[in-house]
Amino acid sequence: MKKLALGIDIGGTNTKFGFVDEEGNGYAENSFLTHDDRSFDDFLGQLDKEIKKAEKEVNYLFELIGIGIGAPNGNYLRGTIEYPTNLKWKGVTPFVEKFKRYFDVPMFMTNDANAAAMGEMIFGGAKGMKDFIVITLGTGLGSGIVSNGQIIYGHDGFAGELGHTLVNVFGRECGCGRRGCLETYVSASGIKRTVYKLLADYVDDSELRNIPFDELSAEMITNAAIRKDTIAIRAFEYTGRILGMKLADTIVHFSPEAIFLTGGLVNAGDYLLKPTRQYLDENMMPIYKKNPPKLLTSGLLQKNVAVLGASSMVWNEAAG
Amino acid sequence: MKKLALGIDIGGTNTKFGFVDEEGNGYAENSFLTHDDRSFDDFLGQLDKEIKKAEKEVNYLFELIGIGIGAPNGNYLRGTIEYPTNLKWKGVTPFVEKFKRYFDVPMFMTNDANAAAMGEMIFGGAKGMKDFIVITLGTGLGSGIVSNGQIIYGHDGFAGELGHTLVNVFGRECGCGRRGCLETYVSASGIKRTVYKLLADYVDDSELRNIPFDELSAEMITNAAIRKDTIAIRAFEYTGRILGMKLADTIVHFSPEAIFLTGGLVNAGDYLLKPTRQYLDENMMPIYKKNPPKLLTSGLLQKNVAVLGASSMVWNEAAG
Repeated sequence: MKKLALGIDIGGTNTKFGFVDEEGNGYAENSFLTHDDRSFDDFLGQLDKEIKKAEKEVNYLFELIGIGIGAPNGNYLRGTIEYPTNLKWKGVTPFVEKFKRYFDVPMFMTNDANAAAMGEMIFGGAKGMKDFIVITLGTGLGSGIVSNGQIIYGHDGFAGELGHTLVNVFGRECGCGRRGCLETYVSASGIKRTVYKLLADYVDDSELRNIPFDELSAEMITNAAIRKDTIAIRAFEYTGRILGMKLADTIVHFSPEAIFLTGGLVNAGDYLLKPTRQYLDENMMPIYKKNPPKLLTSGLLQKNVAVLGASSMVWNEAAG
Repeated sequence: MKKLALGIDIGGTNTKFGFVDEEGNGYAENSFLTHDDRSFDDFLGQLDKEIKKAEKEVNYLFELIGIGIGAPNGNYLRGTIEYPTNLKWKGVTPFVEKFKRYFDVPMFMTNDANAAAMGEMIFGGAKGMKDFIVITLGTGLGSGIVSNGQIIYGHDGFAGELGHTLVNVFGRECGCGRRGCLETYVSASGIKRTVYKLLADYVDDSELRNIPFDELSAEMITNAAIRKDTIAIRAFEYTGRILGMKLADTIVHFSPEAIFLTGGLVNAGDYLLKPTRQYLDENMMPIYKKNPPKLLTSGLLQKNVAVLGASSMVWNEAAG
């Protein structure tokens, strides 16, 4: 009987899920509104129903060998969602403990960036690598770190929060309560803030001058850059400079073989990658230059990374 | 027959070695001048003779189960010393390959900070911990990082160079060729530079005003602080502030259970530890405050850490 893993990605807006085979092929992928203003138990009830409906769509017999779940502040060690900023369920939600009542299979929970890193290792560009980092550039900046073939979770499961390394102690306010964190500069929301800073600093004409802050998106900034809007191009240079310099620091911690970038901001391609590479090279400690880490985009950009990544935790365990 | 491991620590000035049993007791410890202006082969010849002389001093029969070697830029993956700044042997020296001609036992080479971390885990304050960091505050700042019970070496063996994270892009010149690295501020040589900066900035009387830069030592600064010298006390505050702020960044990478400080600068006790703790707490991301990492001094301060640490790599392997 064919074996399948179930991957679930819980986001602030949508919850996506799908079955994934050993080769990374997806089956019966679906999604529904997370609707986290209802109770967590109600959410779990719907999740169970949606999955059981989808199971029938897989048109052959299969064995469900496990479930992987990616969620904001998902804790691998405890199977919990803890104090998420992007979900309305407060405090600590014992996800795995409660979901075991519905499915009696091995379950693995982590955050979306760790799931993306595992997906990259099992199905993507990091196949065969033992030391690499995945940086997700979405609303925030997430990171999943693999060292010696294992995700680094740390003693309480919250390692790998590179979005909260310090860029500037007097810098931008961060959702975490501090100032100057990397993700306030390098992320979809960070580059919006940078565009507004540049619109204040410079007098260049820009199509971005007509867009209110709350309507501005990373996609609009990318499209403006493609149309040679100097403010947009400068915003990517500013973002890439800060990212490149911080990655030089990341390297002295982990000495990775590669750093993979993923998330919406990566669609800007060389507008972002070129300055990032330049400032990474310029700031890299000489000892690493003999065998420098590669800066790459994710090998899963065209796929349902979140579901694939969540399911890959199951396949990683199955591989022993 | 009792089993012993041999630990060797190669420093720019002295090479220390000794036999260590499973409980961390040392036997026949000795040292000789590294004298690295001669050829590496000549050095190895003397090392062999000194060890064989010491073997006779262990007054019972024993089995040598392995040799651990700590050296500047010692590479665990390749058993080499690579481009060390504190040794005169240039380029890549294949230590383990050559030393195998003298002793046919398992050999493990790494740098002194990784050896210190392993020693802390096997014999010191990190017994039973799986996620911790050791920071060595000597001439430079070294770091050994243990995650999930394993030293983090990275893809080319050079992970854990926290002394070369960036404090200030326009900051102090560093031996690595860049500017503003952490160890230019936080180390025995870093605090000397800080004292001279403070002597320039302030008009306070200070016993340190009578000491030329090249004669000033971290011990003198510590003794001056104990005598309430305000420049010395401020120098430790300045050092602790920078260290504490950087450790807040270290934590988001690894989420360690504890951070151990060791090396000569730690003799200053609370003059250094108090500001370090204060700025670590103030800058710590809130998610870690529920179960914060402990800031401790090494559990091996009274021991021959370098030899013990080097030997502990053998005992770690022996434990499987």
